[in-house]
Amino acid sequence: MKTFTRRAGRVDGRSRLARISESTVRRLSHYYRVLEEVEAEGKRLISSHRLAEREGITSAQVRKDLSCFGSFGRRGLGYNVAHLREEIRAILGLDRRWKVALIGAGNIGAALLAYRGFARQGFDVVAVFDRDPQRVGQRMGDLAVRDIDELQAVMTQHPVDMAVIATPVRAAQEVADRLVAAGVRAILNFAPRKLFVPAHVALRNVDMTVELETLSFTLAQRQPKRRAAG
Amino acid sequence: MKTFTRRAGRVDGRSRLARISESTVRRLSHYYRVLEEVEAEGKRLISSHRLAEREGITSAQVRKDLSCFGSFGRRGLGYNVAHLREEIRAILGLDRRWKVALIGAGNIGAALLAYRGFARQGFDVVAVFDRDPQRVGQRMGDLAVRDIDELQAVMTQHPVDMAVIATPVRAAQEVADRLVAAGVRAILNFAPRKLFVPAHVALRNVDMTVELETLSFTLAQRQPKRRAAG
Repeated sequence: MKTFTRRAGRVDGRSRLARISESTVRRLSHYYRVLEEVEAEGKRLISSHRLAEREGITSAQVRKDLSCFGSFGRRGLGYNVAHLREEIRAILGLDRRWKVALIGAGNIGAALLAYRGFARQGFDVVAVFDRDPQRVGQRMGDLAVRDIDELQAVMTQHPVDMAVIATPVRAAQEVADRLVAAGVRAILNFAPRKLFVPAHVALRNVDMTVELETLSFTLAQRQPKRRAAG
Repeated sequence: MKTFTRRAGRVDGRSRLARISESTVRRLSHYYRVLEEVEAEGKRLISSHRLAEREGITSAQVRKDLSCFGSFGRRGLGYNVAHLREEIRAILGLDRRWKVALIGAGNIGAALLAYRGFARQGFDVVAVFDRDPQRVGQRMGDLAVRDIDELQAVMTQHPVDMAVIATPVRAAQEVADRLVAAGVRAILNFAPRKLFVPAHVALRNVDMTVELETLSFTLAQRQPKRRAAG
């Protein structure tokens, strides 16, 4: 048992982790979900085959991914579920809290604040900004909405780990520029447009709008609308 | 002016649209956002160059995409913003309402019901299902949560255009299977796992969990956690 923990400890430096590709991180994220599921079922061991089966990839890929960070199953026994889950949890940075600034106090912002999964993954919204004078000063959850023009000043005093952009499309790039200028190093973007940020800033996009529109496109194709003649 | 509308009418059959690739639909979705933005600025005409500039792709790609559905700009003038927006709106199926069943009355489900952008894009949640007896019968917005076991019966009486899966990971595939059996042809999946559905069912995934975890991974790499010695 201890072996797993110590191994995880030994490889928790940056040199090895730095080589982990984004697609590996995505698979780790999926393995983590499978491990949670399997742990909830009361299982103590899991094979690479089972981890692969659940995600539709090969068991060789699983073993390769897990060997990247020094976790090796035992032939014939497999991986210890609880320990592997803890290792992946630490690697994914899910074992601590991250401070988040939310930019945009509109629909998506409100939905995000209401979304408890956000906090459960370790992300705590500590500040909300908007440019609309009607929203500034209003309360949202436990926070008062602040003017976007205070961004730089607030972040200098209270640095955050990450910012969430939940503004209308037209404001998104300017907000991203301001965040970068204020020293933010990680951005989660909900505005449905491509944003440009320097290479040292991590940017992820959640584009629900586009997913919805590809679905409505598909639906519209199947059910062409009746058109008035002429 | 009329020319644009009639052209749109002429190509609104399925033969031409069926050839539009998913990546084209994604770009159409982005053009639509740019057109909304430009229209809000009071502009009447837009060049393919400008549409391209805003998305970081080539103007030749824009012209090719738009020619797919028969909309041609005029050399030196560009595209009529309002008409092009209307054409794309119809192609994306955003000019009508779609009935949606929400499966999972938890955090994501509640956030989605609170998210007004969902309705603004034409998606109306008409039924909510859950398997948890503590949730069944509770009100969520204007709806009473129904037992997942009623799914088939409810959908036979009141068919929906689309279903949203917002269940825990472990229930997602079973729910997808039930939805497919109940005749649902389009699924938006928020559960962070790969789902398997027949080819005739359109499936889109919004995987916020994985995006968050790739961000926390990046943050964790930069700020390795202090570990107790030994």
